[in-house]
Amino acid sequence: MVKGRTEIAELGEFGLIDRLTAKFSKNNKSTICGVGDDAAVIEASKDKAVVVSTDSMLEGVDFDLTYFPPKHLGYKAVTKGISDVVAMNAVPEQITLSLGISSKISVEFLDDFYEGVEFACKEAGVDLVGGDTSASMTGFVVNITAIGRAKKSEITYRSGAKEHDLICLTGNLGASYMGLRLLERERRVLQGVDNPQPQFEGYEYLLQRYLKPRARYDMVESLRKEGIVPTSMIDITDGLASEVLQICKASKCGARIYLERMPLAKQTTALAEEMHMDPVVAALNGGEDYELLFTVPLDKREQIMNLGCIDIIGHITAESTGAYLVTPDGKDIALQAQGFTPKK
Amino acid sequence: MVKGRTEIAELGEFGLIDRLTAKFSKNNKSTICGVGDDAAVIEASKDKAVVVSTDSMLEGVDFDLTYFPPKHLGYKAVTKGISDVVAMNAVPEQITLSLGISSKISVEFLDDFYEGVEFACKEAGVDLVGGDTSASMTGFVVNITAIGRAKKSEITYRSGAKEHDLICLTGNLGASYMGLRLLERERRVLQGVDNPQPQFEGYEYLLQRYLKPRARYDMVESLRKEGIVPTSMIDITDGLASEVLQICKASKCGARIYLERMPLAKQTTALAEEMHMDPVVAALNGGEDYELLFTVPLDKREQIMNLGCIDIIGHITAESTGAYLVTPDGKDIALQAQGFTPKK
Repeated sequence: MVKGRTEIAELGEFGLIDRLTAKFSKNNKSTICGVGDDAAVIEASKDKAVVVSTDSMLEGVDFDLTYFPPKHLGYKAVTKGISDVVAMNAVPEQITLSLGISSKISVEFLDDFYEGVEFACKEAGVDLVGGDTSASMTGFVVNITAIGRAKKSEITYRSGAKEHDLICLTGNLGASYMGLRLLERERRVLQGVDNPQPQFEGYEYLLQRYLKPRARYDMVESLRKEGIVPTSMIDITDGLASEVLQICKASKCGARIYLERMPLAKQTTALAEEMHMDPVVAALNGGEDYELLFTVPLDKREQIMNLGCIDIIGHITAESTGAYLVTPDGKDIALQAQGFTPKK
Repeated sequence: MVKGRTEIAELGEFGLIDRLTAKFSKNNKSTICGVGDDAAVIEASKDKAVVVSTDSMLEGVDFDLTYFPPKHLGYKAVTKGISDVVAMNAVPEQITLSLGISSKISVEFLDDFYEGVEFACKEAGVDLVGGDTSASMTGFVVNITAIGRAKKSEITYRSGAKEHDLICLTGNLGASYMGLRLLERERRVLQGVDNPQPQFEGYEYLLQRYLKPRARYDMVESLRKEGIVPTSMIDITDGLASEVLQICKASKCGARIYLERMPLAKQTTALAEEMHMDPVVAALNGGEDYELLFTVPLDKREQIMNLGCIDIIGHITAESTGAYLVTPDGKDIALQAQGFTPKK
């Protein structure tokens, strides 16, 4: 081939997806929403839609089996899948699992993995409806497809945020990332040690957030009970900065996020301090929190406050003003996204 | 862990799936059919259903990039996905793609891959509606989820075959496997040769069947026009023997397949002869034909014959009689399935 070679890093993940999917046209009227949101939206009946999302987890990139127990990995795979369905304000109902299995994987490993899958499915009221196993030459590969359902009028896209809308966030940020940092540190310290005893005391919450995060399907129900349909929504997988920018891009708007309103757990702050790092960096760029970021009109403020465990961290602005993090002393820091770049 | 270690090969692919999915219960009434068929069936409306299927293709196991052009790989991924939807007698309408991208993959490679995906989508009238890209430490990983739609009354499971039903097959068998054998031979022969010139003359059809197979979505339409709903159906991915056994297992029946009715293309027989192998082995165990195997009641014989390009290769028997290949001299050979076993 005489063609040149462009590295993927030159485009970035989001630029790459835009480039690759630019030429595709729509062939079916049942396709309500295609590429570009957390999940695809497909017509089911006159007033209802099915949403479908797909995600991969690859050994050595998304998880390290030296410290990731298979049971937790199974649980987390389900969370990763259904979180995208939840981010469309839909109720997750089914998943399919496709596994690539390398020779080092035993039946007992898979028993544990599926135990975690089953536990997560039961907890979320989701059915495992299909799958596929194949040999993998390299590492353990997990692909999860999640399917959910909602009234068309309730489906929440990334694209509906309007100027002056409140930016809301469930839970707290950065804990999952700090859990990963802790696991990595203990692995490094204990490399080559016989009978290693990692020190996790006082940081159990961080480990749980990284190894066994729960998707916020409870929030879909809470919002429904309050009669609130957010104007836009996304789940936190790549870190707050990236998700705010995705909403801004899809909704053609700007945003202001206030640093002092950033919800951080005590253990997150404590470990960050111990590691001489800024916990806000973990919140902005860490990712894998599986919390929900959404926007609602200004007049829903009280209802949102009543729901509890939701923070209003900022508001939507005009597109021309850009997307910023505002520090307590009034400085504006431009938000920057991070996608993946292929590892060597 | 004190647990023992059981190798996956001890259970086989099908035994493994049975074991892993045994404990799962059904939580949603929208789940019409879960694990155990070509695709899951999910309620869409009173009389319609959505079918969803997921499949992986892993570098080094399912394809070798030294001879698999990325454009063809993209095309074949779509075929692999929608073939499962077609095997449920449903019309494929959407796909999602999830890629694991290693550092050796360039943007130009992905451009070509997506060109193949787009071509196949346009040909089949299918929309690409979502996806996900992530870094892969090892090889190129493709996961495809296909979504289709059908009236509930038209959906064809593996489980409906009845005694005396005719066993029907579209197209011919073994060509894809022989295409792979040819590519492997030329790669071996030309290893280390500067400017290699592989010899494919006279075998172009075999290459096309391996590198760029088309799913039989045309058959869903043909069957619909004739008003035929098969009693059972499956697509040929693991070879005829395995698929017949799957139908027998799901339908609790036996089968007799007649060797002299096995449809083989001229090039398949020619290359098999050249390689001193039996083309019937390629047909029985080769796989990746993406043809349809289905059963219809005896009284549909004439209608099936009128459709053209369908062979009646045998019939369904009682479960107690087992599943056999019958040779022209009247010998019965028990059919045996082959699943995957993890490669080192």
